Amino acid sequence: MEAFINNGLPYITLAGAVIGLLFALLMARRILGFDEGNETMRHISASIRQGANAYLKRQYKVVAVFFACMFAVLCVMAALGFLTWYVPFAFITGGFFSALSGFVGMKIATAANARTANACIGGLNKGLRVAFSAGSVMGFTVVGLGLFDISLWFILLKFVFKLEPSAITGAMLTFGMGASSMALFARVGGGIFTKAADVGADLVGKVEVGIPEDDHRNPAVIADNVGDNVGDVAGMGADLYESYVSSVISASALGVSAFAGDIKAMALPMVMAALGILASIIGTFLVRTGENTEQKNLLKALRRGTYTSAVLIALLAFPLTWFILGKENWTFYVAILAGLVAGVAIGAATEFFTSDTYRPTKKLAGSSKTGSATIIIGGVSLGMLSTAVPIIIVGACILVAYLVSGGAGAPARGLYGIALAAVGMLSTLGITLATDAYGPVADNAGGIAEMAGLDPEVRKRTDALDSLGNTTAATGKGFAIGSAALTALALIASYIDKIKAVAGAEPVDLTFNLMNPMVLVGLFIGACLPFVFAAFTMESVGKAAQSVVVEVRRQFREIKGLMTGEAQPDYATCVDLCTRSSLREMVLPTLVAVVTPIAVGLLLGYQGVVGMLAGATATGFLMAIYMSNAGGAWDNAKKYIESGAIGGKGSEEHKAAVVGDTVGDPFKDTSGPAINILIKLLSMVSIVFAAVVFKFHLFG
Amino acid sequence: MEAFINNGLPYITLAGAVIGLLFALLMARRILGFDEGNETMRHISASIRQGANAYLKRQYKVVAVFFACMFAVLCVMAALGFLTWYVPFAFITGGFFSALSGFVGMKIATAANARTANACIGGLNKGLRVAFSAGSVMGFTVVGLGLFDISLWFILLKFVFKLEPSAITGAMLTFGMGASSMALFARVGGGIFTKAADVGADLVGKVEVGIPEDDHRNPAVIADNVGDNVGDVAGMGADLYESYVSSVISASALGVSAFAGDIKAMALPMVMAALGILASIIGTFLVRTGENTEQKNLLKALRRGTYTSAVLIALLAFPLTWFILGKENWTFYVAILAGLVAGVAIGAATEFFTSDTYRPTKKLAGSSKTGSATIIIGGVSLGMLSTAVPIIIVGACILVAYLVSGGAGAPARGLYGIALAAVGMLSTLGITLATDAYGPVADNAGGIAEMAGLDPEVRKRTDALDSLGNTTAATGKGFAIGSAALTALALIASYIDKIKAVAGAEPVDLTFNLMNPMVLVGLFIGACLPFVFAAFTMESVGKAAQSVVVEVRRQFREIKGLMTGEAQPDYATCVDLCTRSSLREMVLPTLVAVVTPIAVGLLLGYQGVVGMLAGATATGFLMAIYMSNAGGAWDNAKKYIESGAIGGKGSEEHKAAVVGDTVGDPFKDTSGPAINILIKLLSMVSIVFAAVVFKFHLFG
Repeated sequence: MEAFINNGLPYITLAGAVIGLLFALLMARRILGFDEGNETMRHISASIRQGANAYLKRQYKVVAVFFACMFAVLCVMAALGFLTWYVPFAFITGGFFSALSGFVGMKIATAANARTANACIGGLNKGLRVAFSAGSVMGFTVVGLGLFDISLWFILLKFVFKLEPSAITGAMLTFGMGASSMALFARVGGGIFTKAADVGADLVGKVEVGIPEDDHRNPAVIADNVGDNVGDVAGMGADLYESYVSSVISASALGVSAFAGDIKAMALPMVMAALGILASIIGTFLVRTGENTEQKNLLKALRRGTYTSAVLIALLAFPLTWFILGKENWTFYVAILAGLVAGVAIGAATEFFTSDTYRPTKKLAGSSKTGSATIIIGGVSLGMLSTAVPIIIVGACILVAYLVSGGAGAPARGLYGIALAAVGMLSTLGITLATDAYGPVADNAGGIAEMAGLDPEVRKRTDALDSLGNTTAATGKGFAIGSAALTALALIASYIDKIKAVAGAEPVDLTFNLMNPMVLVGLFIGACLPFVFAAFTMESVGKAAQSVVVEVRRQFREIKGLMTGEAQPDYATCVDLCTRSSLREMVLPTLVAVVTPIAVGLLLGYQGVVGMLAGATATGFLMAIYMSNAGGAWDNAKKYIESGAIGGKGSEEHKAAVVGDTVGDPFKDTSGPAINILIKLLSMVSIVFAAVVFKFHLFG
Repeated sequence: MEAFINNGLPYITLAGAVIGLLFALLMARRILGFDEGNETMRHISASIRQGANAYLKRQYKVVAVFFACMFAVLCVMAALGFLTWYVPFAFITGGFFSALSGFVGMKIATAANARTANACIGGLNKGLRVAFSAGSVMGFTVVGLGLFDISLWFILLKFVFKLEPSAITGAMLTFGMGASSMALFARVGGGIFTKAADVGADLVGKVEVGIPEDDHRNPAVIADNVGDNVGDVAGMGADLYESYVSSVISASALGVSAFAGDIKAMALPMVMAALGILASIIGTFLVRTGENTEQKNLLKALRRGTYTSAVLIALLAFPLTWFILGKENWTFYVAILAGLVAGVAIGAATEFFTSDTYRPTKKLAGSSKTGSATIIIGGVSLGMLSTAVPIIIVGACILVAYLVSGGAGAPARGLYGIALAAVGMLSTLGITLATDAYGPVADNAGGIAEMAGLDPEVRKRTDALDSLGNTTAATGKGFAIGSAALTALALIASYIDKIKAVAGAEPVDLTFNLMNPMVLVGLFIGACLPFVFAAFTMESVGKAAQSVVVEVRRQFREIKGLMTGEAQPDYATCVDLCTRSSLREMVLPTLVAVVTPIAVGLLLGYQGVVGMLAGATATGFLMAIYMSNAGGAWDNAKKYIESGAIGGKGSEEHKAAVVGDTVGDPFKDTSGPAINILIKLLSMVSIVFAAVVFKFHLFG
């Protein structure tokens, strides 16, 4: 029994990962069996695919330079004895697999877009099946690859290199740093690309020239569709790979310190993840409806899938915890459950604040009656107000997880409980991501339907799928943000463990007293980082969008016969422009995220670093919710008006709502989600550079 | 010598206060000596005065209910032994004098508006003299009354009731809670009034009907001018009274714990304040120019005044510290100096980000070329980015003040140093407030010039004064925000002292470890408060503005001959509407500020309270800067375009900039400044309820 826990569990988790990957493969094959539609549709889809591939290729080149530099730095540090030699390699693999997750997701999404549009000709349910399968590929690739890598490293370090548990988790945290860095590049770069193209296409096409969205005469229309793939798919894939991996390895690391190096506490989060993959697979089979169904039944079908998975995990996690940790430690199950419930609750709160079926967004849409200024004020205040509910949910979750697991009497166990709550929250990621990632596919399918001139009924169906995707995306974002906060806290605890380990026999102050000015100044600086980061990314979107506007205006002016359809626009230039500007703009924010923790550490010492991490986690959480929810509500308020409410499409109210939506675009799709990654990357970098900071610092 | 320090200093500070008040009286008499202009001007000014008086009367009635309830609560607590009996009375006086500061400022501002307009007929310098005198009355009333009350209570408690130093500062902190509560009501209520009237008047008058700003046909024009007085004057007066008093008494309180009850450390902040009054009076004499001067010389004149005062204090604070604290403690002088320098630096940073003479605001104005969405995105990101510089300045100031004063070896002295930095920063408040408060007077004068149909040249002059006021207001805001952060930290330290005192012999954990979930959850909740508070206040402005819009539209529709000037609009209804809605809306935000610290304390204990206060201070500081600077930059970008840049007045770019300005209005004049008060009120309430929270709490 003990022997099985010690030696068998890593292989169990590896098996879970392989099952997830096989399921993804199965789904991918299923998609490729569908028909891509007529010649035009194939052609458009190919252009999108081409643009997306070209973007990713160039993005990887830029990222490779960063990774090469960091690898060199880590090697030097290893040579100087500040790190083990596993660290540089773990860093590289983390980045590689994070990129791979995004890449696979994008490949399948660009293969599925025309197929979804074509399937929609046959009905809503057929379309859903293709789009949801594409989402599933993404979902199970992310969790499958994530768990695969973790298990593999675990097996390698434990059975081949025979490291101590604390050394294993130490190396694996670096693996997380690689994943986070890659995720940040992907989210920021992709986010800038997609919003620059979107804003640029809309501002000239819809507002100035007056052609519909996704009209084939718009020179930025392909770039816009490429953006959905590189931002909302590849960016999100890399992002959630990072979230998933970080939550599992930070929990494992805290398990090691809570149970004095006992391998079982380290293994539990991984096995939980494997269990989650199985539960998610079962859930996906429940996502189906009758042929001639309505939109609201589709939502029910998706919900049935996610809720069933969650209930399965709630039921199975209890015997699992009992079996692995022993019956005297069953209360950790409550921590896992608290995380699971908190995730669902945050998702519900997000939906309440951003869906047009509830009062806040309806009221926001109403504020368009007095113009764009009032809808902006309304959205900003809605977003800020909406932070209160998730804060209370996460606060309650932290308290419950901590108190049931150990409380003040055994703080290390309490912190492990908090980390397990994050794992519980993300355990259903396979299916929640599937319901989330199918949205961009439907969005693309709509674009293709429009450009290929399919029956308007088809476009209506893709729109129905797309708007459903908005709702599920809101829920997905709730999970991502909530788990980011919990994981960030777990990583701070890991940082403190690391400092303890680095200090060895040297005296070290492990209370991080808020009245210590090093902690306090660190807190201030950390709290400021999400603001600065959001500013950088928004400014980048603005800059890139303006260059797109200029180019699109030029094409409309210079290409004769463009409006009459006699001449083709030059799509490639717009794609290229977005690519170049987003790649240029993604570097600075990422450098800030990597350099600041080192600079703060060298200046204020490890006390300052903990203050910084706590400050960044608190305001990062708030800013991410504020920006995501404000953006989501503006988007849905616009859709609500477009559906005929208030003034309807084309009215003054609608114009005001379009301004809100345009402001919301970088809020919800660039800055907001990137902040989630930022707060974890800050901790990861701090952990990796802990030894240096401990040795060299000016104050503190 | 020792005897003089012990017994003489309180009288010295009282003398300083009286000198300040006499100077204010002198200035007030001087203003009343100027002519109010023709019949129309007198009439308009009287209407404004009437509206403002009516508002304040009703506001005081609402506030009186709150104060009566709190007084009852405090009396019950005193009867139960949780507080001394001085506390309820100190609370009432704090509120009374804070209200009085705002009241006097408003009285003189409404007396000076027509006089300023009339003086502008004779030239720019004449106008400046009247408006600046009005600002000076306000500035010296605030500091004079503030220091007067502090000295009086000090003398009373020390020489009449013969209390111990720690009991004296304990009672005086309650005095601060009264001032903060009143300030919050005044800021929030006045802020909602002024922006509701402003937005309402502009949206219908300028945008829909197309009449100029301050046109007498606009039914909301008097309400708009009333708003300048009740918000920007009465609200600001109460606000800065609170800032001033809080910084001095929190420094005194920390002096008591740093010097083991020695009266000299307690007296130093008060004497510094007295010195500041004298230096400010000298500075005001330097604010004068030749008769036919240009605008930029006016700015030079104002700067000469404030900088001279600052230099005087920098020179005189050294011998003062040496004399009072003894030569072995001269390093506290460095802390005072750090605060003074930090205040000036934050002011400069604020100006850089919000003045149209620098790149950020110019660039923001340029982003109007692609419409209102891009100027909103630009302003939001400018505001967020601008938080970085003040954070670094305040962080450096905290470190310097702490390290020179005692550092880790003597943390109590270090915290006293931080509090002294806040006192240093606010020591020149007399003159900085004078240069700040004259803005609304000039603004009103412009309105009167317009409505009375004076020569356009006069309006140009009042506009020049007003736009100068925007620059000095930016500097003033920098001081207010910076000092709020330092004072809030000092108050947290006072809270901890209080807990120590309350605990007596009981065991108490005075390290506030960030890894303690009580602290952490408190931090999350505290960090969320400024977001929620900003949301509430913005929503209130939106609601109130919409009711004004509806009423103004009704009047234009129903009153025949209004546009042709044959019929008079019904000004009083708009004033009444603004009054009612702002009074209704100011209650909830204030209750949140009072109830939350008690609720968090009862739930999470004093550890949670400290976390909450630190979180609220960090994000409150950031949000206040973000909102003030974004709002200021939008305002000035609009003015920059109106001055003929980019598209000029009436262009599409100008329309986009007006949207930015409208969004910025509640940002910079309602939510932003109110957050400064919020973060201090939270601490004050926590201190007063410390004994209850220590005895009863669920966790922690």
